[in-house]
Amino acid sequence: MNRSAVAKKNQAKVLLMMIQGRIVPADEAKVSAHDRGLHFGDGVYEVIRSYAGQLWGFEQHMARLERSLREIEIDNVDLGQVRRWVLGAFDAVDRVDCLVYFQITRGCAIRAHVVPEPLEPQFLLMIKPPIDNDEKVRDGISAITYPEIRWKRCDIKSLNLLPNVLARRAAHKQGASEAIFIDQGFVTEGAVSSVFAIVSGKLILRPLDPQILPGITRMAIKGIAERLGVRIEERPVSKDEFLRADEVFACGTGEEIRGVVKIDDQVIGQGRPGPITCKLVEFFVRHTRSGGTLDELLD
Amino acid sequence: MNRSAVAKKNQAKVLLMMIQGRIVPADEAKVSAHDRGLHFGDGVYEVIRSYAGQLWGFEQHMARLERSLREIEIDNVDLGQVRRWVLGAFDAVDRVDCLVYFQITRGCAIRAHVVPEPLEPQFLLMIKPPIDNDEKVRDGISAITYPEIRWKRCDIKSLNLLPNVLARRAAHKQGASEAIFIDQGFVTEGAVSSVFAIVSGKLILRPLDPQILPGITRMAIKGIAERLGVRIEERPVSKDEFLRADEVFACGTGEEIRGVVKIDDQVIGQGRPGPITCKLVEFFVRHTRSGGTLDELLD
Repeated sequence: MNRSAVAKKNQAKVLLMMIQGRIVPADEAKVSAHDRGLHFGDGVYEVIRSYAGQLWGFEQHMARLERSLREIEIDNVDLGQVRRWVLGAFDAVDRVDCLVYFQITRGCAIRAHVVPEPLEPQFLLMIKPPIDNDEKVRDGISAITYPEIRWKRCDIKSLNLLPNVLARRAAHKQGASEAIFIDQGFVTEGAVSSVFAIVSGKLILRPLDPQILPGITRMAIKGIAERLGVRIEERPVSKDEFLRADEVFACGTGEEIRGVVKIDDQVIGQGRPGPITCKLVEFFVRHTRSGGTLDELLD
Repeated sequence: MNRSAVAKKNQAKVLLMMIQGRIVPADEAKVSAHDRGLHFGDGVYEVIRSYAGQLWGFEQHMARLERSLREIEIDNVDLGQVRRWVLGAFDAVDRVDCLVYFQITRGCAIRAHVVPEPLEPQFLLMIKPPIDNDEKVRDGISAITYPEIRWKRCDIKSLNLLPNVLARRAAHKQGASEAIFIDQGFVTEGAVSSVFAIVSGKLILRPLDPQILPGITRMAIKGIAERLGVRIEERPVSKDEFLRADEVFACGTGEEIRGVVKIDDQVIGQGRPGPITCKLVEFFVRHTRSGGTLDELLD
């Protein structure tokens, strides 16, 4: 594939772009070369999936955004305006099933770690079609393990994602879909997903801590597991326990819920999505596609 | 200060901007909203100081850049072109004393961790006047300690700098100039500098490892110390040993060499730059200002 073909493939899938509230043509969209996102990754982001004409978990995503902003001390964002921009962009694509990505950076300034503030926070939004998950949900995915090299505040959904990129590249090279970070023998999370094990019928979740993102899909999974009578245990899980688990699955906003059927060279369970994973998927798919909300799962 | 005054102050100090080899007006400079630097910090950078009409340590900076690119698997950069762009930009500002910042990102693509490659790497360069260091070199600086929250590959000079921003912000709030990262009781480095202690007449350097940047100024310091007959010991140094050290100093391309005279609430040595620090500074200043090269210090 030559360079322009690559460029075309990479440009093919944007439904809408918005910068500072203004809808702009995706292929011409530009930002200031002084955006602190570009020099420092000094910003945070969210990705929201829509189902049945609704931005799923919108309030939970907005709450997490607000927390991320607070943790990195970007304190002058007009969140009401962000809401209006996100909802306006979603209306502008006729509320189709899609993924809404948006990021907020601290602002623009000549590069220096600390600059006089306030700056004007910079908002960038991109709407893409949802990931085509059917095959991966049906057959499951392979994952590799990868050393946990990320920073120690992965509870903040920041733009510092180079280790995630490197981990995904390593997975890709080995024909796998996801990389699972291992920190001193224990699983933290995937490069783009939360990963959970099912052992002896129980769903095992790593407790929330600064090493992992408080996942929105995790919230949904917990609610669904309770409804299905699947017991939940929150404790750290070792890599060894993952490799021996009855089932493993990865979940996230874009990836939804995917059985992990192989980790490194180890087949997990029967080498296909396990029965509890399948029940969770079935519930999640039915619920989201029929207009069910996240809030309904959290009661 | 209102927003436009802040903007003006932040825009005041750029001598030249260049994007993909083209010199552009600094206040209008823009990049693609699909630059992977903006979404992932998927790129690396260098900062070079000029003295006496020369880019000091140019070859060493270029070698480090090449290593950083290799480590994050950006393998299609035309380094000859990067050289020509950097040198051309420096010529265009008449080789004044300045700081030349430049970054290279993997390229532009619709946001996804892994995308079809090759992409066209994106080059951005900014030339600023040197930092006015006189007062800080003369009087020394205060520093705070800060938990090491960065990723585990700080030997790569990447654009994932949010923890450095947060650490510098914390220092700034406490009236200090620098933040020193502490990892399990041991000093790694500063948020924008290498930091070294002098204990019983010996210069103590943390050995190079993936937790710290292989500093160019560190190379110079080693050469100068040898010429001054200052013994060097390479070993990890604890925070406690730093606080009790005879002298501590911070060094880096922009900051040059600054005595650290206070860390948190602890006065270091006599509360002013110590005698060995002053000798290192004196040598470094005389050498650089008179056209001496880094290579001469490495023989």
